[in-house]
Amino acid sequence: MDLATFQATIRDTYGERDRQRGVDATFGWFVEEVGELSRAIRRQGHDERVHEFSDVLAWLVSLADQCDVDLAEAAERYADGCPRCHAVPCQCGPSRPG
Amino acid sequence: MDLATFQATIRDTYGERDRQRGVDATFGWFVEEVGELSRAIRRQGHDERVHEFSDVLAWLVSLADQCDVDLAEAAERYADGCPRCHAVPCQCGPSRPG
Repeated sequence: MDLATFQATIRDTYGERDRQRGVDATFGWFVEEVGELSRAIRRQGHDERVHEFSDVLAWLVSLADQCDVDLAEAAERYADGCPRCHAVPCQCGPSRPG
Repeated sequence: MDLATFQATIRDTYGERDRQRGVDATFGWFVEEVGELSRAIRRQGHDERVHEFSDVLAWLVSLADQCDVDLAEAAERYADGCPRCHAVPCQCGPSRPG
């Protein structure tokens, strides 16, 4: 699954309605899905988790697209390992870049 | 950017520490990054937004990996458009699958 292709598909599928809704409302939908993911992780099984991870990713991509962010380009920051210590595995200690 | 490759890189970079931390703590880190993304969208510029989208994606991938979820496989649910109405663009009306 190519991330740029995925973003284009999400844009073609939901982009017009997402733009009408606006960034704040889209962020609200995204966070609602994060809540559903929490429930799936805590109280449900593998199939429900896969379902909720896909929804969270789809809403994250919708949000990125509305913010004119190319998520594949953003992901390049991690493509060679840790963006802070540049090591694989990361040698930053208990924290992680954020 | 291939999503399966990205998940493998995140696993190689952070997987051992993520497993030691556990799913609940990883979820907490993920949500902290969601908060930082909210701030970047509301009050910061393009570069900060790209940075925060990359962090949210990296933590989502870490969380999926700990839950034995292949995020690329999960994303396939949206590969042909809306998983509910199977149309591009989606014809579901104001809501969206979730």
